[in-house]
Amino acid sequence: MELSKRQEAIMEIVKKEGPITGEQIAERLSLTRATLRPDMAILTMSGLLEARPRVGYYFSGKTPGSVLAEKLHNIKVGEIKSVPVVVPEQCSVYDAVVTMFIEDVGTLIVVREGGLLEGVISRKDLLKTTLGGQDIHKLPVGVVMTRMPNVITVEPDDSVWLAAKRLITHEVDALPVVRPVRDDAGSLEVVGRLSKTNIARLFVELGEGGG
Amino acid sequence: MELSKRQEAIMEIVKKEGPITGEQIAERLSLTRATLRPDMAILTMSGLLEARPRVGYYFSGKTPGSVLAEKLHNIKVGEIKSVPVVVPEQCSVYDAVVTMFIEDVGTLIVVREGGLLEGVISRKDLLKTTLGGQDIHKLPVGVVMTRMPNVITVEPDDSVWLAAKRLITHEVDALPVVRPVRDDAGSLEVVGRLSKTNIARLFVELGEGGG
Repeated sequence: MELSKRQEAIMEIVKKEGPITGEQIAERLSLTRATLRPDMAILTMSGLLEARPRVGYYFSGKTPGSVLAEKLHNIKVGEIKSVPVVVPEQCSVYDAVVTMFIEDVGTLIVVREGGLLEGVISRKDLLKTTLGGQDIHKLPVGVVMTRMPNVITVEPDDSVWLAAKRLITHEVDALPVVRPVRDDAGSLEVVGRLSKTNIARLFVELGEGGG
Repeated sequence: MELSKRQEAIMEIVKKEGPITGEQIAERLSLTRATLRPDMAILTMSGLLEARPRVGYYFSGKTPGSVLAEKLHNIKVGEIKSVPVVVPEQCSVYDAVVTMFIEDVGTLIVVREGGLLEGVISRKDLLKTTLGGQDIHKLPVGVVMTRMPNVITVEPDDSVWLAAKRLITHEVDALPVVRPVRDDAGSLEVVGRLSKTNIARLFVELGEGGG
């Protein structure tokens, strides 16, 4: 949403002097209230200004950018997550690499019985291991994976924004999407996978048709 | 930007019957023109509807989503690209893996003299190679890299949206950012790197403060 010059002038006035009445704003701009009405309606209905009877207009603290931000916060992990690709802890590093190529993913999720989260293993972890000179046919992934409780996770109702923030902050490529297990404190059921690829794909979708 | 129920009703009418005058819309909704005026102003000024004198209102083809989309298309690759991490074609696979770990990147860009693009090599390519049982100290990356002209690239003035689209379409993690070399047709100077991490980071930045 692009603001007109006049709308920007109104925003400036309200930021400086708000709460301020419509009449006072009209006065500052040497315009009639009627002329301003559509602009005031746009600014309040888009959430940039708020209006309260007998108080006047004041700045909501939102910017056109934060209106976009709200949209990003409203999309949930559950809406865009991928199917998790899982292996058991006893799986060999060699088999893990093969699984990664077959499934074409960059991160495997390691689970115990019941699909409960034990750890994660990334392409980077596996590359480091293959260089180590150990017998990767015998080495179980449990030895080289990142183990609970050090795994960064996300829940289906978390926002995609929060997931992206965790991916960036913790410098990982993917997060297991989990649900706490009732009556089993600390256990997390794996219900999906959210990677940087999901974020990039969402980015593309949000931009479709706007070229 | 969220539309009110009434604004959505107006959008429906205009999509079906446009071009249509304000009076006709008011009639359909059993409202006065004065009541509708702020809504019509919002819908036209946000770009969802267009208005032409003596013709009426018609649908611009934009949706609230496409207003967001426009924003994503306006951000350029040059604004968010990272520094490229490059190796020469003669670099051994072993040294490439070491470089990848030291620089903590998922993709290396292979260049010849003058920083001109020759190829790219990903963590996935290297993982496949380390499994192959060859002597990775002697094997040059030139043998296993994706070579020009098969490398997917992007230019600094391209939109970040286009870059994300290429990342997803071609299933790669990063793109070399290049500039064509004048008087040397087909040669591309490497000026940066754009990865899914850049996209995720931008996503986080766009959403800052909107929580």
